[in-house]
Amino acid sequence: MKFFQAGDYNEVCHGLLERETTQRRTGRAVDNSDTGFLLSALYARRIGHCIHAPVVAEINRAGGDAAIGRTLDWLVRRDPSALEPSLGKEPAVAFNLAILNALIGTPWLPDLTGHVLMIEEVSEPLYRIDRMLFQMAHATQLKGIAGIRLGRVNDILPNDPPFAESVQQIIERWCREMGVPFLGPADIGHDVENKVVPFGRV
Amino acid sequence: MKFFQAGDYNEVCHGLLERETTQRRTGRAVDNSDTGFLLSALYARRIGHCIHAPVVAEINRAGGDAAIGRTLDWLVRRDPSALEPSLGKEPAVAFNLAILNALIGTPWLPDLTGHVLMIEEVSEPLYRIDRMLFQMAHATQLKGIAGIRLGRVNDILPNDPPFAESVQQIIERWCREMGVPFLGPADIGHDVENKVVPFGRV
Repeated sequence: MKFFQAGDYNEVCHGLLERETTQRRTGRAVDNSDTGFLLSALYARRIGHCIHAPVVAEINRAGGDAAIGRTLDWLVRRDPSALEPSLGKEPAVAFNLAILNALIGTPWLPDLTGHVLMIEEVSEPLYRIDRMLFQMAHATQLKGIAGIRLGRVNDILPNDPPFAESVQQIIERWCREMGVPFLGPADIGHDVENKVVPFGRV
Repeated sequence: MKFFQAGDYNEVCHGLLERETTQRRTGRAVDNSDTGFLLSALYARRIGHCIHAPVVAEINRAGGDAAIGRTLDWLVRRDPSALEPSLGKEPAVAFNLAILNALIGTPWLPDLTGHVLMIEEVSEPLYRIDRMLFQMAHATQLKGIAGIRLGRVNDILPNDPPFAESVQQIIERWCREMGVPFLGPADIGHDVENKVVPFGRV
């Protein structure tokens, strides 16, 4: 099993996607945030069991022990209480929106036909969130997803001039433009309340 | 002729790409920065004459009169001294890197086979520039470009922790990974020295 560390984004820059996806054939990968790159690349090649979940580095945050416990509860005992509660019969994935965006148009984004796509974001101004959702809504590769759920959008940075819409209005508008159902909230985020989302079917 | 305004990004959010590309069949479009979206969409459909160049709003900056004069010199007299000096026999395009990234994977990015791609950026930390170049280097749609030139990367924001490479090292590394020649600097940028780059052949 590999827990990817928060903040090891730089690894991604140096051929890691190629290396990890050619050398790994089994195993479990746990991640969130920047190394969502790796989950995506592994899932695109259907390698191992990928889950979007709290990682070891959470231990440094208040409430981090419960967050990591949730990941372990799922990995060790398949405890359903650790899971994002809307997960059901449709396959799902979860991404930080900026990471999803950076994968669009590359071979490292999985085929997500029929999947529920959950997204979350942190520390971005609304104009950037809007621009990222433009790309998601117009991405040729994402045609055919089953729906979108919005996780927490934490620590929104000031927008100058002020943005005319709320996050909720923005996501609903882009889902309409995309022609994909907005399915409501997802219990994921860049925080210790982040729930486990196994990529694919539970 | 339409001069798009700096900062009219919000227009792009509301179906403008669809509207502009279905209603316009001729004319000239001048832009840089955020509404590079529109230049890209128009050029993707080979509508009109698109140029990446200083826009009217530059008049508010010191030296802005010369910048706008350069755009007019090209539009009115086809004065070659207004042009980005490396422009030659190969077709070219110029983009703000963040805007190029947001177009990747969508139908609004033109076929750039055989083109020199010029990019510039402003007010981003190095980790984001690196992440944007990851997407450029791995973009399926950009296979087959003739080469990359780097315009000015102005007002780089602090990176915490410090990034281990310079902008020059970052761009050269990604060009190697992409298998595309790095052709050197481009005389474009988010500044009044920005030179004119007509999309396609001069």
